[in-house]
Amino acid sequence: MLGARGGWQALRRCPSSIFSSSSSSFSSSSSSLPREQRVPAARLRVRQALGAREAAGEVQVQGWVRSVRSQKEVLFLHINDGSSLESLQVVADPSMDSRDLTFGSAVEVRGKLVKSPHKMQNVELKAESIRVVGPCDALSFPLKAKERHPLEYVRQFPHLRCRSNALGALLRIRSEATAAIHSFFQDNGYVHIHTPIITSNDCEGAGELFQIETSNETQESAEKNRFFNVPAFLTVSGQLHLEVMAGAFTHVFTFGPTFRAENSQSRRHLAEFYMVEAELSFTESLQDITQVMEDLFKTATSAVFSRCPRDVELFHKYIAPAQKGRLEQMLKNKFVTISYNEAVEILKQASQTFAFKPEWGCDLQREHEKYLVQHCGEVPVFVINYPYDLKPFYMRDNEDGPQRTVAAVDLLVPGIGELCGGSLREERLPFLESRLQRLGLSDAYQWYLDLRKFGSVPHGGFGMGFERYLQYILGVDNIKDVIPFPRFPHSCLL
Amino acid sequence: MLGARGGWQALRRCPSSIFSSSSSSFSSSSSSLPREQRVPAARLRVRQALGAREAAGEVQVQGWVRSVRSQKEVLFLHINDGSSLESLQVVADPSMDSRDLTFGSAVEVRGKLVKSPHKMQNVELKAESIRVVGPCDALSFPLKAKERHPLEYVRQFPHLRCRSNALGALLRIRSEATAAIHSFFQDNGYVHIHTPIITSNDCEGAGELFQIETSNETQESAEKNRFFNVPAFLTVSGQLHLEVMAGAFTHVFTFGPTFRAENSQSRRHLAEFYMVEAELSFTESLQDITQVMEDLFKTATSAVFSRCPRDVELFHKYIAPAQKGRLEQMLKNKFVTISYNEAVEILKQASQTFAFKPEWGCDLQREHEKYLVQHCGEVPVFVINYPYDLKPFYMRDNEDGPQRTVAAVDLLVPGIGELCGGSLREERLPFLESRLQRLGLSDAYQWYLDLRKFGSVPHGGFGMGFERYLQYILGVDNIKDVIPFPRFPHSCLL
Repeated sequence: MLGARGGWQALRRCPSSIFSSSSSSFSSSSSSLPREQRVPAARLRVRQALGAREAAGEVQVQGWVRSVRSQKEVLFLHINDGSSLESLQVVADPSMDSRDLTFGSAVEVRGKLVKSPHKMQNVELKAESIRVVGPCDALSFPLKAKERHPLEYVRQFPHLRCRSNALGALLRIRSEATAAIHSFFQDNGYVHIHTPIITSNDCEGAGELFQIETSNETQESAEKNRFFNVPAFLTVSGQLHLEVMAGAFTHVFTFGPTFRAENSQSRRHLAEFYMVEAELSFTESLQDITQVMEDLFKTATSAVFSRCPRDVELFHKYIAPAQKGRLEQMLKNKFVTISYNEAVEILKQASQTFAFKPEWGCDLQREHEKYLVQHCGEVPVFVINYPYDLKPFYMRDNEDGPQRTVAAVDLLVPGIGELCGGSLREERLPFLESRLQRLGLSDAYQWYLDLRKFGSVPHGGFGMGFERYLQYILGVDNIKDVIPFPRFPHSCLL
Repeated sequence: MLGARGGWQALRRCPSSIFSSSSSSFSSSSSSLPREQRVPAARLRVRQALGAREAAGEVQVQGWVRSVRSQKEVLFLHINDGSSLESLQVVADPSMDSRDLTFGSAVEVRGKLVKSPHKMQNVELKAESIRVVGPCDALSFPLKAKERHPLEYVRQFPHLRCRSNALGALLRIRSEATAAIHSFFQDNGYVHIHTPIITSNDCEGAGELFQIETSNETQESAEKNRFFNVPAFLTVSGQLHLEVMAGAFTHVFTFGPTFRAENSQSRRHLAEFYMVEAELSFTESLQDITQVMEDLFKTATSAVFSRCPRDVELFHKYIAPAQKGRLEQMLKNKFVTISYNEAVEILKQASQTFAFKPEWGCDLQREHEKYLVQHCGEVPVFVINYPYDLKPFYMRDNEDGPQRTVAAVDLLVPGIGELCGGSLREERLPFLESRLQRLGLSDAYQWYLDLRKFGSVPHGGFGMGFERYLQYILGVDNIKDVIPFPRFPHSCLL
C-alpha cells in the first residue's frame, strides 16, 4: 500500500520488520544501531500504519481524534493525521480516557500495531499510552463528530474546513494532480518555466486586469513612486513568455497562478486560479496540440485515480455519483473533434431554442457548448478552427476565406464547458506584423515580432484551467470548493 | 544516458533498435506496425539522438543551428534544440548548404545516426536532407556564433538570452531543481498547497507590499469599485496559510511566487521571487526544522548535480570555478549550528571592525553574516534562538529571559547570506493572545488565534528563497541571471 512514494523520512526510526515487502524504499539508517540498544518508538504517519502489518516494536502515532467511543471494557479512538482519508483505530483501556480526549483534539498514542479482528482494516493500534497534545473546544468547533457537513457549510470556515473529510480528500487530490501534471511534462522532455506574475502585457486583450501599485503609492509624488516604469498587471496567461522559451527549449510548460478581475460571485469563476500552459515548437498541425491536451488529461487523471483511490471515491460516491462511470468511459475513448463550422451547423439544426441564436462569426455561448457536448454523447469535444475576427492576434491564420478562420481549439467537457484553449501561433513575420499594425500594437509587441526574425518555427500551445479540471474529474459544482482558501462570499481575505 | 526520464512521447515513431538498452521506457506502439510498411523517420530530440547508438533507420532532428562549417568535401553543422547543452553534429554534402543556413536559423534534418569518428561524441547525423524552417537575420541577432557572451550582455535581451548556452543551462537547471524540490516533499509525505497570492495579511509586518486594484478602478466610485472588501496585497509568504493546513495534513509545503516592493536595482533582491515553504506539525524542537532544511538542501542539490551534470559544469567551469569543490565538501558534512548568543560573542571578539557594531538585541547585518560564515569555515551555518523583540509575533517564545529569545533559525551560506529562515510557531493560545493584543492585531488575526483552540500542536516551518538557492549552488553573482525574464534595469516589463 505504501509503494515507492511511501518512503517517508519519519520512518528512519522504524524497525523495518513491521512493513510489508512493498515498502522497500525506507532509509536503512536505523539498521546501524547496536542490537542491544532499545529500539525507540517508530514514529508513523497514519497512512504508513494502515499499510503496515502486525509488529512487535513500539510505535508512535500522532494526529487528531475523529471519534471517541468509550465502552465498559474498551476505549476506541479513530486518529487522523491527514495522510489519508482513513483513520487509524486505536484500542485502549478505558482508564486512558480523559475529559480532554474529544473530537478534534490532538493526541499522541504509543503502543503496538496488532492485527485487527475487523474486516475493514488490517491493523489497529493497541495503546500503551495516550497523551492529549492539544485539546479542542468542542462547543465552538464548527465541525462535529459523525456529521457529513455539506460543502456550503464548511466553506464558511476557510481556516478549518481542511479538517473535514471532503476538503481533506480534495486537497490531497489537488496535491496529487499537481504532481501528476508536473510528471507528465517532465517525462515528455518539457522544461518548466516560471513565467512572470507581474507583467505589462495583457496577452489577449480580454478579461479584466488587476493593476499593481506599491502600498505607499499615495505618500509620494506620482512620478517618483511608480515602482515599475510602465503599468504593471497581474498575469492573465504565461503564453507569450512561454513562446519565447519554446524558441530555445522546443517544449516548455508552466503551471502557476493567473488572475482575472472578473465577478467572482459565480460558481464558475475565480479572481485567482491556476493554469497549466504548454508551448511546442516544430508543430505540424493543430492535431499536434490536441494530442498533447488529450494525453495530459488522460495521463494525469489516471495517475490521480490510482494514487488516491479512496479520496476520489468519496467524491464519486457522495458528491457526484454518476461521474465515475462517465470518466472511465472518457479515459477509454478518443476525444471527439469537430470544426467551428460543423458546430454552428449542429446548433442551427438543433430543435432546441437558444437564448443566443447560433450564427457563424459569433462566440459559442455556455448554452451552445452544453448542447454540443450533449450532441456528441456527453464526452470531451475539441472544437477547432474559429473565425479569425473572434480570436486574438497571435493565432495562426488558416487563410481559408471567405469564412476566414484561425487554427484555434477549445476543449469542451460535460458539466464544465471550456476546459482548455489553444492554437497554433502565427509564426510568419509578415502576417503578424500587419495584424499588430492594424491593432496599433506594433510598438508594445516589438519583442514578440523580434522572435519571428530569428529562426522562427511553426509552434503552438494550450492552457488548461486547473480548478475546472478538478471540478470535472470530481464532479464538484462550485469552483470555490476546489481551492485551498475560498474567498467569496466572505469579506475576509485570509 | 536517457534513463527513465528520457521516455518522451515523441519517440512513439522510433524504431526501437536504435536505442541503447538503458532506454527501456519507450512506448512500444510502433512495434505493432506491419513489418513490410516503411518505417517513418523517427523524430528525435537532440538529447535522445546523443544518447542513441548507431542505427539503420532514418531519423529526423529539428533545432537551431549553433555552427556551420563548410569545407570543400563536407558540410558540418551543430544543431541544438534546448534539450541539452550539447549540440548534435550533422555531417552533410556541401551541396546541401544554402544562404539561409546560418547561425540561429531553424532547421529540420533527416538522415541516419552513425558512429562518430570523434572522441567527443558517440554519434553524428549523416544528413540526407536539410530544410531551413526559419531563417535568422544574422546581422540584427544579438547572439553571435562562437562567442561566449557575458551574462551582463545577454541580460539586455530578455526575450532572446535563453538561446545562449549559459541561460539555456541555467533554465534547465532551474526546471530540474524545481522538480527535485517537489519530489523531496512528495517522497516525504508532504501535501502540496497552493497558498493564496492575493491576500490581506502581510505575514511579518516586514517588507514593502504591492497593493492590488482593478485596472478600471478610477472609472467608478471608490466604494463600489473595490473588488475586494478589504485592502488586498500580493503575498510576502504563504506561512500563515500553511499553518492552517499543517493542522490538517501534518506535513505541508508550497512553492510559488512571493513579492516585495523593495528596491530591485540590487544584485540581491527581486520584486517577484519564488519561495519554498514547509510547515510541520508535532515538532519537538527547532532541530526537527533544521533537519528538514538540511535534508531538502542536500537532496535537491545532489539530484540537480546528477540530472544535469553538463549544465552545472558550465557554471562551475566558466562562471564560478571554486564553487564545485566547496559544494562537494558541503554535501558531505553536517551543517554547523550556533546560537544567536554565540554569534554575537564571535562577532564581538572579531579582530575585524564592522560598520554596525555587534550588540545583543540587534539584527545581524550582511557584514556580520559574512564574518560568521567565514569564521565557521565557509560552510552553511544555522543561527538559532534570536531575540524575542527582533522577530514577528508568531515565533515561539523560549521563555529564557533576561535575554529572552524565540525559537527562530536562519541558515547562512557563503557568498549569499540568509538562504532560509524558519521557526517554531507559538502554538499556545495565551502566549499568542497576549502578544497579538499588545500589537493591536487581535482582530485581524482572529482566525489565526482560532487555530490554537481546536487541537493545537507544537509546529514549525521554514522558507527558502529559490533564486538564492540557485545563486548559491551555481555561484551566480546577480540574482537577475537566475530568473527566466530579468526586469531591471530595463524599463520594459515583458
